[in-house]
This record gives sequence, structure tokens and C-alpha cells, in this order.
Amino acid sequence: MDNNRIERLRTSIKKEGLDALIVASPMSIFYLTGAKIHPFERMWLLLVRADGRDVLFANKLFVFDETDVETLWHTDNDDAPSVLCSQLDGIKRLGTERDLTAKYIVPILNSCPGIIVSVSTAVDDLRIIKEDEELDRMRYSSKLNDEVLEYAFSKVREGMTEKELAAYVKEGFELRGASGESFGAIVAFGANASDPHHGNDDTRLRDGDCVLIDMGCVWKDYCSDMTRTKFFRSVTQEQKEVYEIVRKANETAKAMIRPGVRFCDIDAAARDVIEEAGYGEYFTHRLGHGIGLTEHEPEDVGPANPHPVKPGMVFSIEPGIYLPGKFGVRIEDLVIVTEDGCECINKDSRELQVI
Amino acid sequence: MDNNRIERLRTSIKKEGLDALIVASPMSIFYLTGAKIHPFERMWLLLVRADGRDVLFANKLFVFDETDVETLWHTDNDDAPSVLCSQLDGIKRLGTERDLTAKYIVPILNSCPGIIVSVSTAVDDLRIIKEDEELDRMRYSSKLNDEVLEYAFSKVREGMTEKELAAYVKEGFELRGASGESFGAIVAFGANASDPHHGNDDTRLRDGDCVLIDMGCVWKDYCSDMTRTKFFRSVTQEQKEVYEIVRKANETAKAMIRPGVRFCDIDAAARDVIEEAGYGEYFTHRLGHGIGLTEHEPEDVGPANPHPVKPGMVFSIEPGIYLPGKFGVRIEDLVIVTEDGCECINKDSRELQVI
Repeated sequence: MDNNRIERLRTSIKKEGLDALIVASPMSIFYLTGAKIHPFERMWLLLVRADGRDVLFANKLFVFDETDVETLWHTDNDDAPSVLCSQLDGIKRLGTERDLTAKYIVPILNSCPGIIVSVSTAVDDLRIIKEDEELDRMRYSSKLNDEVLEYAFSKVREGMTEKELAAYVKEGFELRGASGESFGAIVAFGANASDPHHGNDDTRLRDGDCVLIDMGCVWKDYCSDMTRTKFFRSVTQEQKEVYEIVRKANETAKAMIRPGVRFCDIDAAARDVIEEAGYGEYFTHRLGHGIGLTEHEPEDVGPANPHPVKPGMVFSIEPGIYLPGKFGVRIEDLVIVTEDGCECINKDSRELQVI
Repeated sequence: MDNNRIERLRTSIKKEGLDALIVASPMSIFYLTGAKIHPFERMWLLLVRADGRDVLFANKLFVFDETDVETLWHTDNDDAPSVLCSQLDGIKRLGTERDLTAKYIVPILNSCPGIIVSVSTAVDDLRIIKEDEELDRMRYSSKLNDEVLEYAFSKVREGMTEKELAAYVKEGFELRGASGESFGAIVAFGANASDPHHGNDDTRLRDGDCVLIDMGCVWKDYCSDMTRTKFFRSVTQEQKEVYEIVRKANETAKAMIRPGVRFCDIDAAARDVIEEAGYGEYFTHRLGHGIGLTEHEPEDVGPANPHPVKPGMVFSIEPGIYLPGKFGVRIEDLVIVTEDGCECINKDSRELQVI
């Protein structure tokens, strides 16, 4: 854990003209202090003040390693929002991470008349640029992901269910010492793959089905995320065509990534490939998303994001084509932006494979 | 799904003097509309208006069964908070569930000058009183929990790890057709049980350890939650004493539950038992929590909650004593409040057991 992170954050919030910032997401608190807990509905917030008098709000039930920040403890007997408000004296301009909830914001507005609350991305802006050690962990997390993807595909058998195949993914990560899945793997056979967020069910694998697996693990707190689509025993001309379009979209996007290129332009490059091939309406989501301590985090790789990419950013490139009632193809990789391009940290082949 | 729920909610928000309410938790949206998705970071909100012009905000990526509410679709290219704000014309008093985030609240405050935003518990107040079919599902969910608890304890062996035992819990639920765990089971051996939120690790079971299992499943959307603490091969005098105090606290609390009794008094009754026995400082959490579609929901069974219990409420009674470095005991049951008392829906014995 890097103690400078809080000081770098303080510099940012001063630049933004804020008197203080409420850090509301547990992963951001972990990033800044090294303390990691699941607070469930209990209060777990970090107040970073321009004047340096930072406060970590913690329920006495929480068990975590000591941090450099002063902890203000409360219990289940206390009114948590009041405890928070009691520490906001002298704060006129308050920034907050986007996930602070109404449970806290409404009492703040009521008890601090005139306070101006704004959403700040200052913590995101730090988290987005990964440090070297973070990058090493992300590489290893993706290496495990490659290995377990190969393991899972080796278990594919006619008649197995999506849930059974998903269980191999989970088992594969456990066997390799990952601390868990970064999200429950999506396994979709045949027409089920035409829903990008399909919930695994008892559908059984049949000849000619596509097998889409979207999976990731957590290794030393860092997430991986990859999708591959392969074909079981045979592939139709249409499946081949769609697959090659998605692959071209994936490769076209990755080829243009370098510092200064805008996220929306990367999205557009992939989207153009799919649109030109006549499948534009079947690519229904953004091209990708940031990733790190959480599986989805800023920046969006989407049409509405004009920000430029910078060295040290890590995000997914995951074009897809989803043909309702027929099949779906998605090919997803993670990339690290380097000084002059990008490094793709998933190694599994993107060649069309009939298994 | 009960279409009257939205109309009952509308009656409540009118009584509160609100022009509209933003329903922000996916489970509340499911409760009111029957549509269930995991939105991750995308917008998924229900605006219930006093004038009846309700709007469900959904990303085009979401796949869900049709509802009776008009859906306003957006895509990843839209600015989601702006889409929400565009539907707030004429709303002066806006209620929100407590989990609406700053991402939406701050733009609402900025784009609707003079709007008064308050936190409303109107949806909670409906969800808290379970309907008959909900109660049946909760009973069955707890029945599965009883069965899997017995299964898990039957697998206890010297030298096994907490993680291994937790895997049997998960497997047991899967084998019985539960849709999953309501939370990752907590399995704690010996001194680990002195942390109420212990994270399962590779600690191996030894003679004389307590074995604490806190577990629950989801069956037809409804959660169960139960804790039992047993002793492996032998039990010390101190363990026996602590166990019997916790058991008495559990039973004393349950014995006094009937409509009209206040939550804080139920908490106090259990707490008094533990305090009088000299262990007050080692009972570090509230006595219990509401449960239903989610594993923790209002009301708190805690010292700060003066509300009276009502028929149809379901909550946990889970006193515990946690002796740092030594062991911990928690005995948790779920109860349904009836017209004249309560029904305990966990059947596993609370007698001290050496296994």
C-alpha cells in the first residue's frame, strides 16, 4: 500500500477547490488506506480533508489492519449519518465519490445548510492509472484466466449444462490459488449467447452450438476478465462470418490504442467494422470498460467518452454480435496502455476454433 | 407478483406528501414490478409518481419480463442521470430509497432548483410485512437451511479446513435446488469464531475447537440465515457456560416477541441476559436484522430501534459472545411474527452438542 496515494488525492481535491472528499466505495478505501472490509449496510467511509484532518468512519464490528488515518468508531447503537455529519464542520465544498448514497447525502444537506455537494472523480483518476505492482498483479490474474479458460474448454462434453461448465471455471480458479472469481462466469450455449448477460442455466450442449465463456478471477485483489467463443463440433457459414467480423473488430480496436487516442474513437473503430459488415444493430453495448480492483470501473470504452487513453490504464476490448434466437459471439481481451501502444494480457488464441 | 404493491406504495407516498419516489434498489424494483436484473453500474431505477405516470428506467442491454410500468429505454451512449432528470418535471418533493447514489442525486439537485429530496422508507414499509406466499417461501428456504446445516456438520472431520467445510454448505444447497447462497457461509473454527465476520481460511479443525457455521440460501428469491455453534470432540467448562448464556439470550428474546413489543426491548432482553452473566462487552453487535428478498433488510433488531414489531415481519435473533483469541458462540434463528407471538422457522436443535 502506497501512503502517497492519500497525499496525491489531497493535491487533487485542493485543485478541484474542494474542502473535503467522501470516499464511499470500499475498494477505494482499500486502495487509499490498505483496510479492506465488506461493510454490508453499515457505515464505512473515508473523509479526506484539504486541511489534512482525515477521518475513517468504522463500525466497531469491523476488523481490519491498522491504517495511517485516524479512525472514528461507531456502534450499531449510533445513528451513522449523524456521526458523519458531526465531522463536517467548516466544510463548504464537499466532493463525494459517485456511490455515496441518499442515506448520507440527505442528512448532510439537511444538517449543513449551504454546503455544496458535487461528484468528484478524483479517486477514480488515481485508480485508473495503475502502478507497476498493480500491473504485475493484473498480468498474473489474466495469466490464471488464460489457464483456466483452457481447462474449462477441455471439459466441454456433449450434453453438459452451462452450469456444469461454469463450475469447472470456478474450480479451476480455486485450484490455482485465485481468491475467487471476479464475477460469476457467464457460460452460454447456442441461442443463449445472444443475450450478453445470459444467466447460466441447465441448457445442454448440442452439436453446432457456440460456447461462449466470459470469465475472470481475482488474484491479490486484482481482477481479470476475458471472453472466448468457440464452436462445438461444427460451425456454419454464418457463424464463421460473424466470428471473423468480431475478431476483426477486436483486433482493429487494439491496433489503434496508444496514449492520446480517445476512448470514443477506439469504440468507433470496432463499431465501424461491425456496422460495415451489416451487423451494427446487433452490437448492443459499449466496447469495453476499465478494470482493476473491481471488475468494472472507469473509464468506459464507449461512444460517449471523449477522454484520451494514458499509459498505465487497463481496460477491456470486447466487441460482440448477438443474433436473437440464433447465437452470439464476443471476443474480449484486457489491454494495458503502454508508452507507444498497448499490451494485450490475455494470450488465448483468437483464431476460430471448432472443439 | 402483486400488482397492488405499486398502488399501495402510491398511497403511502401521497400520505408522506411526496410528488414521486425513486426506487433505487434492484430488489425493491423486483418486488414492485416483477422485473429482476443485476444492473451493475448501469441505470436501473423506478420512478413512482403520485399522479400515476410511473417510469422504469432501463438500459437496452437489460433483458427482463414485461412489466405493467412504462419503460424508458436508454443506451450506453446516453448520459443516464440526464435521462432521469428529464422525467422530473413538476416534481417538487421527491422521495428516494436510501440507496440512490450521488451519481443521480447531485445532478437532480443541480437540474431541478428548489427540489426537496428526502429519504423515504415507504418501500421498506411494504416489504417488511410479508404476504402469505412470501412467508411460505421463507419457511421453505429455512427448511433447506436446516437440512444443509445437518449435512455440513455430518462432514466435519479433524484436520479439515474452514474453506472445505464451507464448500459442503454450498454444495448442499446446490444439491437441494436452492438458487444459491444468500451470502457466503461463514465457517469459523476455534479462536477464529471470536470475529463475528471472520473470512473463511485454511485453518484446520482440532480437538476442542468450536465450529461456528453462519449460513443461508435463496429459494424462489427468498433468503434464509441461521447460525449454529457446536464443539468438536470436547467442550470446556467455559465454552459450556458461554454457550448456555447465548442460548438463554436467544430463547429469552424469542419468548417475548409478539405484536406491539419494541425491537429495542427485544434486543435489551437478550443483551441483559449476557450482561448479567458478565459477558456484556463481548456481545458486540445488534441482536438481529430483517430478512426477505435480501439477507439484511429493515428492521434492525437493535438498541436504537423503538418501532414495534408487527405480524408478518421476519427477522433474525442472533445473540453472540466473542472472546478474543479463545472462541465465539452465536446462535441465530429466523422468526415470523404471528398474531400472538412468533414462529421460529429454523428447526435445528439449540442444545449444546459435542460432535
